[in-house]
Amino acid sequence: MSTIVGIETADIRFPTSTMLDGSDAMNPDPDYSAAYLRVATDASDGLEGHGFVFTIGRGNDVQLVAIRDLGLQLIGRDVEEILDDMGAFSRSLVYDSQLRWLGPEKGIMHMAIGAVVNAMWDLKAKRAGLPLWQLLGRMSPEELVSLVDFRYLSDALTPEEALEILRRAEPGRAAREAALLASGYPAYTTTPGWLGYDDAKLVRLSHEAVASGFRQIKLKVGGDVADDVRRLALAREAVGPDIRIAVDANQRWDVAAAIDWMSELAPYDVAWIEEPTNPDDVLGHAAIARGVAPIPVATGEHMANRVMFKQFLQADAAQIVQIDATRVAGVNENIAILLLAAKFGVPVCPHAGGVGLCEVVQHLSMFDVVAVSGSEDGRYIEFVDHLHEHFVTPVVIEGGRYLAPLTPGSGAEMLAASREHYSVTAADRVTA
Amino acid sequence: MSTIVGIETADIRFPTSTMLDGSDAMNPDPDYSAAYLRVATDASDGLEGHGFVFTIGRGNDVQLVAIRDLGLQLIGRDVEEILDDMGAFSRSLVYDSQLRWLGPEKGIMHMAIGAVVNAMWDLKAKRAGLPLWQLLGRMSPEELVSLVDFRYLSDALTPEEALEILRRAEPGRAAREAALLASGYPAYTTTPGWLGYDDAKLVRLSHEAVASGFRQIKLKVGGDVADDVRRLALAREAVGPDIRIAVDANQRWDVAAAIDWMSELAPYDVAWIEEPTNPDDVLGHAAIARGVAPIPVATGEHMANRVMFKQFLQADAAQIVQIDATRVAGVNENIAILLLAAKFGVPVCPHAGGVGLCEVVQHLSMFDVVAVSGSEDGRYIEFVDHLHEHFVTPVVIEGGRYLAPLTPGSGAEMLAASREHYSVTAADRVTA
Repeated sequence: MSTIVGIETADIRFPTSTMLDGSDAMNPDPDYSAAYLRVATDASDGLEGHGFVFTIGRGNDVQLVAIRDLGLQLIGRDVEEILDDMGAFSRSLVYDSQLRWLGPEKGIMHMAIGAVVNAMWDLKAKRAGLPLWQLLGRMSPEELVSLVDFRYLSDALTPEEALEILRRAEPGRAAREAALLASGYPAYTTTPGWLGYDDAKLVRLSHEAVASGFRQIKLKVGGDVADDVRRLALAREAVGPDIRIAVDANQRWDVAAAIDWMSELAPYDVAWIEEPTNPDDVLGHAAIARGVAPIPVATGEHMANRVMFKQFLQADAAQIVQIDATRVAGVNENIAILLLAAKFGVPVCPHAGGVGLCEVVQHLSMFDVVAVSGSEDGRYIEFVDHLHEHFVTPVVIEGGRYLAPLTPGSGAEMLAASREHYSVTAADRVTA
Repeated sequence: MSTIVGIETADIRFPTSTMLDGSDAMNPDPDYSAAYLRVATDASDGLEGHGFVFTIGRGNDVQLVAIRDLGLQLIGRDVEEILDDMGAFSRSLVYDSQLRWLGPEKGIMHMAIGAVVNAMWDLKAKRAGLPLWQLLGRMSPEELVSLVDFRYLSDALTPEEALEILRRAEPGRAAREAALLASGYPAYTTTPGWLGYDDAKLVRLSHEAVASGFRQIKLKVGGDVADDVRRLALAREAVGPDIRIAVDANQRWDVAAAIDWMSELAPYDVAWIEEPTNPDDVLGHAAIARGVAPIPVATGEHMANRVMFKQFLQADAAQIVQIDATRVAGVNENIAILLLAAKFGVPVCPHAGGVGLCEVVQHLSMFDVVAVSGSEDGRYIEFVDHLHEHFVTPVVIEGGRYLAPLTPGSGAEMLAASREHYSVTAADRVTA
């Protein structure tokens, strides 16, 4: 038996806006940031749970206050009681009736729940001596179903259907785990395509991406249509006809504008159009999907919760689902989303990049192929080559694939030196 | 010319949970709270702008930090520049690219924008010497259209269509303003129906509501179906056949459960079913609306933004739209929602109660009847008889109607003594 004896929160910001890394049509100058949580126990193993919410600068302090408020509730609690029933733990946070008013299940308070839930998953995986993807991938279908909150999902996915999906994937688990350990999981790269890069840099980085083994790249679009056509033509020429090129409008358009704009880009063989409009707009995305077919619509990095994902799938508004490691209420809600996607037969291609998103989200895709969808067909995890050096277990990309991480934990742990160096205020430590 | 020289934020909480006032199926013990903002200028008139976000307790501190962050950006800014173009001011806050990441346009950061925008509207109305409803109701259609952010709305409502709606309502403005001043606006009351009240109290308060002149009451449902049937039968017997009774499930159900449960309540002539399921679930509400017809579905108090309202109207998922004074990004976004509702011919029946919500939202309904929908048919503002005594201009209800407020401002200003008495921490004042 052990007890949570302390938490530490830190407002960590990297001054990325000075380099135009990460610039797109809606986010011209992001400063990649993490509202970061450490959870300490009195167990003799000395293991800690780490979790964070990724933000792009201003407001990271507000996100941190929300995480700290929730984190304070952990102090003095029994560790095993939480870790032995992560479904109940997650639901207890989501259904705090007073905090729920601040969403419900969206925005700062919901992402704060995600940081806390993920920190406890990090601790659970470390205690098990397994990387999170293996810990999850070895749980029984019944255990996995117990993690999911099916409230508001029953018109699309019942616990019985989820169990059936998971049982169907059981026979091949060991073989797929071995395949992951041998050759990793497909990645695509957004590194060439930021809107702030000039043509020469775009072409050079596109060549480099192909030379490194990537089979898909992504370009930001939505600033100016003539620029987009020119940049897409240059990229297509650079990578040749066999490499997939996705485009990402970062919510720039209304419905009709999205369809018009995409008609100009369609001749260059577009792998998907990502975030064409507001992420809350199920019906708008459905109309866009009909208007740009056969180009698939991809979205999800700003989708607030499982209820939104459910509707995008019900309405055929997204043909590719993009989960994010820190947008929803943590690992549990992302498992719900993976199950929904499997039910509808839609591939999951996670959003990553930022700071630490690659390190964490790879575990969810690897869990998906092992135990949920059972497939990596048409699936790629986003990769951006920024800020990995700050993590205890940075992602490893070889031949355009994420190598399976072997270190116990969720991947969220940032190096102590980096946390200290990039904290804009002193870390805030509270102990029992 | 004048300048914003200071802001004050206060974490104000009323211990309402001790009385079970406000108890419902999802919110058993709310402590009605306000994350409160005052804005001071160096003008000789001494007028201040007041705004707040209503919460139900825990998390009010996080909401306040978000408001404070935004409020600090106001200090040193030219007052007239803001007040002369409230459309541009509102958009500048909504499209802060870094803060937008924390929603986008939802949850704590979006509501914080609402508090800041509303505080500036309060100041603008005070300077004009008019209650907010009259200030808005006397603006030209062109001025009103300039206040609205049409981004993401164009598939449902264009600026030209909005202008047409407003122009169509222009001829009758003066007559409807006079009618409001003479006899007010219809109210309904939720006072009898809280889930925590026993049967005797429910019956007594139902009788009192009718005796006071209310033509509609509302009951909370969703705890236990047998209880709901018994309570609804008692209320129907108490008020007779001519008084409308609405029911409110506060998001308690999944789709199938909502339809089943409502089939038990339908015999008692239900005016509307409110919040049957998760407020993000457009498709779920549409299915419920088809399943419970002809009972209308009402929702909106937890709807994050105009994009969600747009979809509920497009999908015929809500037959009654319930705006809230402090859920979206302030007066501007609520004008967008009023215009959307008018376009679709759906009545707006605001959510109120809490603390201060009645005082503020009445201005929006009165503006609606004067200058947008031009009608009060089927429209009622919620009324709950709690905490009005803490406001400088408390609402006045006579014969079941809100009397039109005459005091300049938005209605948001809380008495200084109440703010001080119910603040849980010292007010935080920042000056230039």
